[in-house]
Amino acid sequence: MGKTEITAEPGSPLIVMTRAFEAPRDLVFRAHTDPDLLVRWLGPRELATTVDRYEVRNGGVWRYVQNDAEGNAYGFHGVFHGDPSPDAIVQTFEFEGAPGHVCLQTTTLAERSGKTLMRTVSVFQSVEDRDAMVASGMERGVHDSGERLAELLVRMQAS
Amino acid sequence: MGKTEITAEPGSPLIVMTRAFEAPRDLVFRAHTDPDLLVRWLGPRELATTVDRYEVRNGGVWRYVQNDAEGNAYGFHGVFHGDPSPDAIVQTFEFEGAPGHVCLQTTTLAERSGKTLMRTVSVFQSVEDRDAMVASGMERGVHDSGERLAELLVRMQAS
Repeated sequence: MGKTEITAEPGSPLIVMTRAFEAPRDLVFRAHTDPDLLVRWLGPRELATTVDRYEVRNGGVWRYVQNDAEGNAYGFHGVFHGDPSPDAIVQTFEFEGAPGHVCLQTTTLAERSGKTLMRTVSVFQSVEDRDAMVASGMERGVHDSGERLAELLVRMQAS
Repeated sequence: MGKTEITAEPGSPLIVMTRAFEAPRDLVFRAHTDPDLLVRWLGPRELATTVDRYEVRNGGVWRYVQNDAEGNAYGFHGVFHGDPSPDAIVQTFEFEGAPGHVCLQTTTLAERSGKTLMRTVSVFQSVEDRDAMVASGMERGVHDSGERLAELLVRMQAS
């Protein structure tokens, strides 16, 4: 099993994340768009995710909250731009703890020989915002999400 | 009267536009958020703009159409992120002729000695998308918009 590669070139407002999964892309897409599946892999392992809204359509709003064992809650929300498909899930992303800071995420799923290469590009309003996201420790959350999604895809294909 | 400065560094997905106006920032903000004023300055001079939706609030949708003399219509739409204020108008922006290509725009208005410095940062999903926007001839539309807005602000202050 590979791991998620994260690229953040100095001086650029972009973060690029790629990871391969041993699963067809329709399954990977379903794990992104079915909120009952999403909560099973999204985010760091120690946080529990609850989906508040998840309108998978052009202009649809999504919102979820992540809770830790100490009772802290972290809200995130955004808007889908275009109807999500395996070719592109385009959405804005805001952490409610830092209002006014928005990023735009594009996830594409490419299938080759039964494997799926997932690529997510996040663009931020400035290089400073991008650097702040990297400094926030997002890397561990991204790696946990990738591992958890890989594990879920194994279970979905076994059942 | 100055002109709009457009900066697009090679290899970056950003475009930064700045322009100073001889007007207080509340007036410049009103010209951005009142659709009856917006249509009087937005875009190239030879196009007529009609606003379809303009919901100036967090999560609000906007859409306008620009028509040329030959009967061609160009639609644009997006979503406001956060309640627009002179400190920040954050919105997504899509040209309906190129679906799936989204950019995120942040406009800030800073007042100094009765003048307003307007700064707009547009971030694109990729450097290629940014380069395509620059190559599309957006520069003339941006300059026309800046000139027209400056003229409108003079008229608003004279009346």
